[in-house]
Amino acid sequence: MTARKHYPDKSLALIRKEQHVSIPCGIPYTFGIIGSPMKNLIPVDEMLANNRMDSLVDEVLEIDRAGHTVSTLSGEKYQYGKLIIATGSNPVIPPLPGRERKNIFAIKKDIPYIQEIIDKLVEAKDLCIVGCGFIGVEIAEECRRRRPDMNISIVEMLRHCLQLVYDKEFSLTAEKVLREQNINLLLDERVEAFLGEGAVEKVVLNSGAEVKADMVIMGLGAEANSGLARAAGLEIGPTKGVQVNRYMQTSDSDIFACGDCAEKVSFFDGQPSSLKLASISTMEARMAGANLFSLRRVNDGVIGVFSTILGGNVFAAAGLTLSQAEALGYSVIVGEAESINRHPGTMPGGANLKVRLLFEAGRYVLIGGQVTGATSGGELINVISACINQRMTADDVVTFQTGTHPALTASPVAYQLVNAAENAIGASRATGV
Amino acid sequence: MTARKHYPDKSLALIRKEQHVSIPCGIPYTFGIIGSPMKNLIPVDEMLANNRMDSLVDEVLEIDRAGHTVSTLSGEKYQYGKLIIATGSNPVIPPLPGRERKNIFAIKKDIPYIQEIIDKLVEAKDLCIVGCGFIGVEIAEECRRRRPDMNISIVEMLRHCLQLVYDKEFSLTAEKVLREQNINLLLDERVEAFLGEGAVEKVVLNSGAEVKADMVIMGLGAEANSGLARAAGLEIGPTKGVQVNRYMQTSDSDIFACGDCAEKVSFFDGQPSSLKLASISTMEARMAGANLFSLRRVNDGVIGVFSTILGGNVFAAAGLTLSQAEALGYSVIVGEAESINRHPGTMPGGANLKVRLLFEAGRYVLIGGQVTGATSGGELINVISACINQRMTADDVVTFQTGTHPALTASPVAYQLVNAAENAIGASRATGV
Repeated sequence: MTARKHYPDKSLALIRKEQHVSIPCGIPYTFGIIGSPMKNLIPVDEMLANNRMDSLVDEVLEIDRAGHTVSTLSGEKYQYGKLIIATGSNPVIPPLPGRERKNIFAIKKDIPYIQEIIDKLVEAKDLCIVGCGFIGVEIAEECRRRRPDMNISIVEMLRHCLQLVYDKEFSLTAEKVLREQNINLLLDERVEAFLGEGAVEKVVLNSGAEVKADMVIMGLGAEANSGLARAAGLEIGPTKGVQVNRYMQTSDSDIFACGDCAEKVSFFDGQPSSLKLASISTMEARMAGANLFSLRRVNDGVIGVFSTILGGNVFAAAGLTLSQAEALGYSVIVGEAESINRHPGTMPGGANLKVRLLFEAGRYVLIGGQVTGATSGGELINVISACINQRMTADDVVTFQTGTHPALTASPVAYQLVNAAENAIGASRATGV
Repeated sequence: MTARKHYPDKSLALIRKEQHVSIPCGIPYTFGIIGSPMKNLIPVDEMLANNRMDSLVDEVLEIDRAGHTVSTLSGEKYQYGKLIIATGSNPVIPPLPGRERKNIFAIKKDIPYIQEIIDKLVEAKDLCIVGCGFIGVEIAEECRRRRPDMNISIVEMLRHCLQLVYDKEFSLTAEKVLREQNINLLLDERVEAFLGEGAVEKVVLNSGAEVKADMVIMGLGAEANSGLARAAGLEIGPTKGVQVNRYMQTSDSDIFACGDCAEKVSFFDGQPSSLKLASISTMEARMAGANLFSLRRVNDGVIGVFSTILGGNVFAAAGLTLSQAEALGYSVIVGEAESINRHPGTMPGGANLKVRLLFEAGRYVLIGGQVTGATSGGELINVISACINQRMTADDVVTFQTGTHPALTASPVAYQLVNAAENAIGASRATGV
């Protein structure tokens, strides 16, 4: 769609493997509130037709770079001037003993397979989810919604839920919300093996504990699907993504890559990043599409902006966590503010909203932010992301203009974003840091 | 509060006229959903105590700049090292014939007076509101909420409702929402006089039309309350505010001014601006407080960020409208995008959200934005304001990282902010502008 907007006269075609394409972020919700993977589709054909693009359902098996052609499963050959590889990712499935047992699933973007998970979900008694990241917690909550009676456990090898995205206090809040839904959290535990006769019956942990389970879902992240690019001799990067430059070009400048299959670097230090998010993928796609025939957009690297909702509370984050920042050698100043998102607080529909901001000492540049509470946090995290992207200082955050309204936000005196920045400055001045 | 954070060791006192202080933006809602001005109070004493500040209810009558003292109504004299004038504004009451008649009100930040308006509201039959800006439309809707049976009219001298803040299409949407609530809009009309025997009975318009009214509320904006500063010989600016420099200092560098009483300039062209908003006032207060003993913050001028909710729909705006930009000599590229704020659209709680962005041609720098629809627009307008503040280009808006989630926002493919920017570029490329 971006290529069409930028190059109205070019002939464009998209080759995809599946007729029906899932909305990736919606997959956990097909287990609960959406109810079916066929109600969670990207309207691909409509979008392509509206953008005057050829739509081909087929699978590319080979790229002939010298001949500028691709060959497909159906035996066709297509000529290209420029090519974009957007082959996405596959779920990580670690080589654990017993992983081939029945009723052990991962989250594949494959509609019949998702339906198979749902079919099992409606009859299973004991669900064990492996991984307490975003996929794991969202699946746990949606399975609870569908099956109030089921036993649900999550096994996580880190000490806290969502630890890669939130500082400890926010993770503890998320854990509380999950436990209130009778979801059993087994933290600081690794899976050693899956046992059972044919089908899985229990999950053995490294502590020696055993978790009864007639169904397992693994939510352990994803790895780049870069085999096609590798076979074509394109350079592959340190996280196994297709190596790209700042313009999303691969080692062959007529071939671009974007999304989960492409290598990424951090906005903060330029080092390889394994972040994979739909919002990053679409951003990269907008760069690749715009740069096809003329370099127009530059990729400064990934900030990482996350949001989800657990037990009706938003959990959102952007940029570095405290432990990530400290590991990179930052000295961090933290400011927090919490208030109801209405003024006065008795205005209807109000909910608590807490903001935590992380600034680098010395320069006071914003490097991270976390939000919990009211649903307006889903957009507030994007205010924070814009501030991080622009390397705004605490004073910039305090003094840029924000709009407030009694029925929509905290009062301008209590506005959480501004007060968190002011509190960071205040804390620092008071202690002389 | 800012001064306390920045200067922990200073002695600070606040002198205010009233014991109870209204939340200014909440006043329209005291007429309806809040119900009483005593439920719409800033917890001033608590805030001052928490910040180790002396709290004095008194009125300053005179500033003696040579002696560095202020004298009050109660006969006290207080010494100051630095002084901040934050005397706010008074409602504009034009010198119309008959304005002294009974039951003609303006919106004063005065609790007994607000209660008087409410007492009249519960018994009046025909309410005429003068001015279809934010105060006018919010009051109209709240009066309708309280009095479903009352006749309500709004007289506006401009051609459209909220015309100073929105482009025509957004104003038309707001007008439709108001008319659906049986609020009679009399646009492109001026009040000539108020008639009646003692109490107001009708409002005469310049077209010759007469509006039956046993109650009138004027919502015509506010003018700086700068008399105290003027009497002290401080420089007064072109919009009658106390003249301040970029650090909020008046013509006497030991005296600062901020908020509605202080002169302002536009972020866009540095020219005088008469904008008066609580969010601007608090931002200026955070500058004045931080700069008291050491210049730490700089005022780049007002962008103007507005939000309200009418008929359940957010109406928010930041920066210049199309007609304001054109009047300043900008050639403007407009991009719009509209989508439901969920993905898939069947996720519960979804509502339509439309974004309109204005870019300057040539540089493609963002100069304005408008949002209607879902309540998440209340924070989305602050994303737009951050982008304007940082002079981000359309490409910057498209490619900075935003977070999305099925239960909170549009999909990353349909995210309205990004697509509005992309559509502006696309429209321009297609037409060669």
